[in-house]
Amino acid sequence: MAVYTHVEEEELEAFLADYDVGGVRSFKGIAEGIENTNYLLDAEKGRYILTLYEKRVDQNDLPFFLSLMDHLAHKGIACPVPIRNSEGNQLGELNGRPAAMVSFLEGVSVGRPTAKHCAEVGAGLARMHVAVADFDMKRPNSLAHEGWRTLAQDCLHAADDVEDGLAAMIEDELAYLDDHWPANLPEGVIHADLFPDNVFFLNDSLSGLIDFYFACTDTFMYDLAICMNAWCFERDGSFNATKARRLTAAYGQERPYADAEIAALPILARGAALRFLLTRLYDSINTVEGAVVQTKDPMEYVRKLRFHRRVKGAGEYGLG
Amino acid sequence: MAVYTHVEEEELEAFLADYDVGGVRSFKGIAEGIENTNYLLDAEKGRYILTLYEKRVDQNDLPFFLSLMDHLAHKGIACPVPIRNSEGNQLGELNGRPAAMVSFLEGVSVGRPTAKHCAEVGAGLARMHVAVADFDMKRPNSLAHEGWRTLAQDCLHAADDVEDGLAAMIEDELAYLDDHWPANLPEGVIHADLFPDNVFFLNDSLSGLIDFYFACTDTFMYDLAICMNAWCFERDGSFNATKARRLTAAYGQERPYADAEIAALPILARGAALRFLLTRLYDSINTVEGAVVQTKDPMEYVRKLRFHRRVKGAGEYGLG
Repeated sequence: MAVYTHVEEEELEAFLADYDVGGVRSFKGIAEGIENTNYLLDAEKGRYILTLYEKRVDQNDLPFFLSLMDHLAHKGIACPVPIRNSEGNQLGELNGRPAAMVSFLEGVSVGRPTAKHCAEVGAGLARMHVAVADFDMKRPNSLAHEGWRTLAQDCLHAADDVEDGLAAMIEDELAYLDDHWPANLPEGVIHADLFPDNVFFLNDSLSGLIDFYFACTDTFMYDLAICMNAWCFERDGSFNATKARRLTAAYGQERPYADAEIAALPILARGAALRFLLTRLYDSINTVEGAVVQTKDPMEYVRKLRFHRRVKGAGEYGLG
Repeated sequence: MAVYTHVEEEELEAFLADYDVGGVRSFKGIAEGIENTNYLLDAEKGRYILTLYEKRVDQNDLPFFLSLMDHLAHKGIACPVPIRNSEGNQLGELNGRPAAMVSFLEGVSVGRPTAKHCAEVGAGLARMHVAVADFDMKRPNSLAHEGWRTLAQDCLHAADDVEDGLAAMIEDELAYLDDHWPANLPEGVIHADLFPDNVFFLNDSLSGLIDFYFACTDTFMYDLAICMNAWCFERDGSFNATKARRLTAAYGQERPYADAEIAALPILARGAALRFLLTRLYDSINTVEGAVVQTKDPMEYVRKLRFHRRVKGAGEYGLG
């Protein structure tokens, strides 16, 4: 849930004077995204999402995110398209925050994805990875493998409060990943946060990808590993092999795998699980007083990591 | 800000099976109202607001609120119209909460109302008061004059922390209002909370009244007094006599005043100011841990009450 910065109608009108969208018909704060303030704007010329970027997003990264959405949209990927103001800029300022307007996307995110949804998101992710081939901006992954040990240092002291023995398991996993992390896999811009919240469907077909604010340059297969963690486990913690097979097969139809990518999937899945385990652990012990965002349970990713540690090969994910 | 109860797409679909609205195109939690959870729903057959009623609203009152909106809409008042399900009911259940769908209204609420907006809201309020003449349901005002002393008892101990001497001023005001509160003025169903948040405008013309969840049977002029408090003071605390004149004049055009109503306006304005002073004071000392709703400043209404205590007659509000 968001809406951190209140925008009054008069402030909106002043901001919109620079945009060719016509008069305002409706303007409502919406509970979408957790990092920024989002409004749904109905104007005479269309529907838009107006985003005010709050402190957790580095302003220097905004041109990367907006250019990426623009690039993807022009390549036919269904994602928000940044609207330019009368000076040709995608980025403006509203109530002291950087602000951007993007096109509105129809569709609804699903709480309980089916195998069909998993296939749709696998294909959609692969199409995005193909589409970034000629996107020439880069952004380092601030939550990449190299940074996990530092992140762990800030929250490891609290791990055993979550589950007895968790700190030792994390230490063990960090050592294993350091020894085995794959190098030289195909890379490019990845979404890095393609959870069900960030994918819209219409009649069970993918209608849009949103929230590119973790996008960065990293290994394509790591993005797929993040998706598999987010989409292919049931709420009871069990792994749904059918969903994983549909996800990975649909991805491969759009972007064929190199052999090394298939071989690396099990370790990338472990890394992706550890990454979300660590950030959830960090957030759970660094909750801001009065924050409206509910922290997510680190244990969900402890269980996922434990599953991946038992996996013997990519075949268990339906690959190879 | 609201959205207390999360509704997943699958839960929504099950709920909508009882409604003739077509497939879902978009569904977003919105920051509207402070008592309930609200979603904006785009379906094939139209746009709707889906409301889940949270604990602060008494379920027994819901038929009153929904019937009122239905009645007003059929009388041509621009307000949300409850949608009936296949069994003809306006009220359903979703995620364990009573839930209703109403039509979506275009328009934007204004943060800094102009005199024109005040005239619009005065006329709109009067039209509502005329329209309820043949509405036959009643609901006592749980925050009526008779209850203020009880409400004060629960928060008077904290009054002097807000401003030195405030407890004595409240006691003094309660005694004065008990002695002078008018009887036998025309009454009917009033909105009772027609703040700028609850009025939409399109091109500075009123396009809708929303949030009828404080509506109750009380004196019509008390409703106007609430509006005057909410719309005719500037942010620096000063009273804008021009706005009050436009508000009261526009009201009188649609629903002519009785002499007793004009004479009673100053004391009703004092009462309305005290009512919001007391509830804000109460809320400020009874903030729920982790609540997402920001409490409002009681001092705003201390200053308004102080203004009304100096008023000599309705002429100062542009009336009589």
